[in-house]
Amino acid sequence: MTENKKEFVKEITPMEKDFSQWYTDIILKTELVDYAPVKGCMVIRPYGYAIWENIQKDLDCRFKETGHTNAYFPLFIPESLLRKEQEHVEGFAPEVAWVTHGGDEELAERIAVRPTSETVICTMYSKWINSYRDLPVLINQWANVVRWEKSTRPFLRTAEFLWQEGHTAHATEEDAEEETLKMLEVYRDFVERDLAIPVIKGRKTEKEKFAGALRTYTIEALMLDGKGLQVGTSHNLGQHFAKVFDITYLDRDGKEKYVWTTSWGVSTRLIGALIMVHGDSRGLRVPPKIAPIQVVIVPIAPGDKKEVVLSKAQQLYETLKGDVRVELDDRDEYTPGWKFNQWEMKGVPVRVEIGPRDIEKHQVVIARRDTGEKMVVGEGELKPRLLKLLEGIQHNMFKQAKSFVEKNTREVENFEQFEEIIKNKRGFIKASWCGNRECEDYVKEKTGASIRCIPLNKNEHRPGKCVYCGKESEQIVYFARAY
Amino acid sequence: MTENKKEFVKEITPMEKDFSQWYTDIILKTELVDYAPVKGCMVIRPYGYAIWENIQKDLDCRFKETGHTNAYFPLFIPESLLRKEQEHVEGFAPEVAWVTHGGDEELAERIAVRPTSETVICTMYSKWINSYRDLPVLINQWANVVRWEKSTRPFLRTAEFLWQEGHTAHATEEDAEEETLKMLEVYRDFVERDLAIPVIKGRKTEKEKFAGALRTYTIEALMLDGKGLQVGTSHNLGQHFAKVFDITYLDRDGKEKYVWTTSWGVSTRLIGALIMVHGDSRGLRVPPKIAPIQVVIVPIAPGDKKEVVLSKAQQLYETLKGDVRVELDDRDEYTPGWKFNQWEMKGVPVRVEIGPRDIEKHQVVIARRDTGEKMVVGEGELKPRLLKLLEGIQHNMFKQAKSFVEKNTREVENFEQFEEIIKNKRGFIKASWCGNRECEDYVKEKTGASIRCIPLNKNEHRPGKCVYCGKESEQIVYFARAY
Repeated sequence: MTENKKEFVKEITPMEKDFSQWYTDIILKTELVDYAPVKGCMVIRPYGYAIWENIQKDLDCRFKETGHTNAYFPLFIPESLLRKEQEHVEGFAPEVAWVTHGGDEELAERIAVRPTSETVICTMYSKWINSYRDLPVLINQWANVVRWEKSTRPFLRTAEFLWQEGHTAHATEEDAEEETLKMLEVYRDFVERDLAIPVIKGRKTEKEKFAGALRTYTIEALMLDGKGLQVGTSHNLGQHFAKVFDITYLDRDGKEKYVWTTSWGVSTRLIGALIMVHGDSRGLRVPPKIAPIQVVIVPIAPGDKKEVVLSKAQQLYETLKGDVRVELDDRDEYTPGWKFNQWEMKGVPVRVEIGPRDIEKHQVVIARRDTGEKMVVGEGELKPRLLKLLEGIQHNMFKQAKSFVEKNTREVENFEQFEEIIKNKRGFIKASWCGNRECEDYVKEKTGASIRCIPLNKNEHRPGKCVYCGKESEQIVYFARAY
Repeated sequence: MTENKKEFVKEITPMEKDFSQWYTDIILKTELVDYAPVKGCMVIRPYGYAIWENIQKDLDCRFKETGHTNAYFPLFIPESLLRKEQEHVEGFAPEVAWVTHGGDEELAERIAVRPTSETVICTMYSKWINSYRDLPVLINQWANVVRWEKSTRPFLRTAEFLWQEGHTAHATEEDAEEETLKMLEVYRDFVERDLAIPVIKGRKTEKEKFAGALRTYTIEALMLDGKGLQVGTSHNLGQHFAKVFDITYLDRDGKEKYVWTTSWGVSTRLIGALIMVHGDSRGLRVPPKIAPIQVVIVPIAPGDKKEVVLSKAQQLYETLKGDVRVELDDRDEYTPGWKFNQWEMKGVPVRVEIGPRDIEKHQVVIARRDTGEKMVVGEGELKPRLLKLLEGIQHNMFKQAKSFVEKNTREVENFEQFEEIIKNKRGFIKASWCGNRECEDYVKEKTGASIRCIPLNKNEHRPGKCVYCGKESEQIVYFARAY
């Protein structure tokens, strides 16, 4: 068993030695993804996709509870349509994959593979919306999008990725702002509760906001290497798109008015966050709520006791399977020790071991992935104990992650402190910022750190002096190097 | 109310007058789809997408019950990869959308937007499969695919459509054949039970089989205009792809062997079938099992009784909503008659009407969409009656469709009869066929009818003379003009 463990562990580069290689080792060895034949694209393998399916299921439920329905808009956008909104196209054109031929024929107009769908959806909304009675329009789509990036990393930045994009239209500015913040809160709640990832809710600076938005809100997480990651955004698009795409409605007062639109999205990047927030030297740790396999049963079945043990293991499996996502690993070709390590690497929250002596004593041994702790549990209590334990693990993982963020969030008074932290410790840096783009750019240039967000929590703000130029500032912002 | 009805009905072109226009009217007016800014693409609107979501949910469940897991493979396939299998590329190349530029840069190699994913999935399987222990590999993906077609029609043939494609690899020919037929049966069962569409299970001829397959199996349905529609296919790919993509495994006997692969798929075309099998002069009829809204409650609320009626309607809604997919139409701006017609057009299986007199008598009125029948039901019995009624409607719709297929399936002895039927009646034509490609081509050329399938049901076969050349034949095949 010790040998097995060594073998597994040595396959994973230690996090401290090379975080990026650790990440690559984890995603490949746990079979979350593989590299695709097209550069920059990924194959999401069944274990990775099962995590995405759980994310989809939970989020979709939340979208529907907040009144949204799903629809599907086309993958293709004519170039002229993409170019209608100036800021928007400038933001996305450098990353667009262009279709120029259909079969043997050259197309009259180039077609973009959607990098995001505002332009095509707004075109449709302009047809569909006529009266105040048609508002609000609350539509979401689950889709693939393409951004032709030079430097890619699975889940974090790939040429193609999966996401959802909500697109809504409202009668008033207030309604649009309310929707934007409501969906940001849906994301926060989901990411914190289900993925056990603590986030900072905030607003993006003008520099960092979505191309074409009035205001972009974001949730920002901190990875174990001290780098920030934007995990979800919600945009109040104002009337920019409504005016360009002529989306108007006849109001109660008989006047024709432009609608207010929003858009919001999260992507398979969430899986990247999950790995880099919860992973450890032994592999993945998947929070129970989102884990494809919550409990794995490993029978310890020496030759002459094999049948008895397997039959008991099967019985446990049958008892549990209605209530937890359980798997029975009854493969013959691997030792129990090998299996322990493999399931630990895959991040399954709880392992149940059952051997001949356990059967005699009407007990099983359970092991937590989050703490490594082992417990002996009477067979009769197994199900309720497991259900409670899964909840406990979920909470504990959030607590651990939260404590990491707290330890790695530092408030600084001046640029010297700022530079020292970025050099040695990374993490979030809270600092006063005057609001000038120049200071934002300088800090980025000198330290590599960008403003992740201006926190929404008003208590975090206080008067001070801009960390770069020293001018008066009323606000505190979060800086970090980021993915 | 009569005026309202007329207004609705006159918006839908009568089926007998112009079936194709009837179809277009239905899909646009019921807001299933809309035309997209890119020619040949469709926007699936929330009502249409909700049907697709129900199809997905049911099928996905069946796939998982038969041991399959989902994964996601990239949208993009390098040209060289697509060209690896000769037959396959010849089948698909004329319809490929080609990406030639990423941002401002021309790509070194053109990239295909996937028309189907055999080539990229086989490339991955070649990496993933090493030993007999890795088999079978049973993976499905839900995805969009693109086929650049000249002539398109929403749901039936569009440049982009949504589908699922299962791709499996097996150790033996028997295993692959078993899988191919198993998934065909999963499709048949789903389409007949859930969509209430009767189908013929059969094998495609060499001419009609999938590009690169050993054998293609199909389920074929008959539309109300007498044209056939292929609604699902399952391919035994033999070792063609395994050999081209070098997918081998080390068998128990220590020998390196090629795997056997299959692929199978259904698409948003199923929604087209549903419309053309169940629709009528008043609009859609959606089978209860797949209906986004199974029951709609329409309050009939004259001015002074409005509050009482709405409150009762709300109460009924609350009682029902856990057990059926119910909607309460409490919109102020439309009359009950207008609403009746709108929901009939949308194909909602059951309408519940509630007015002041019904409240006095503790009753409601329910109306079936499939037969138009109205019934008075005591309030206390409503839920069980509805549940039973929905089942009854599901069965009745299948029975109606089945009887249409039976009436429109004709066996012929010679080509004269064949031509007469094709000219006047359409439908399925059962006839003997010698198996020669020439006869198949001639019949197609002269009548527009293709061989839909060679039925799997052995009882349908008997010796006879080929309907075209008169040579001895052992088999009966289904002909039809088809979409």
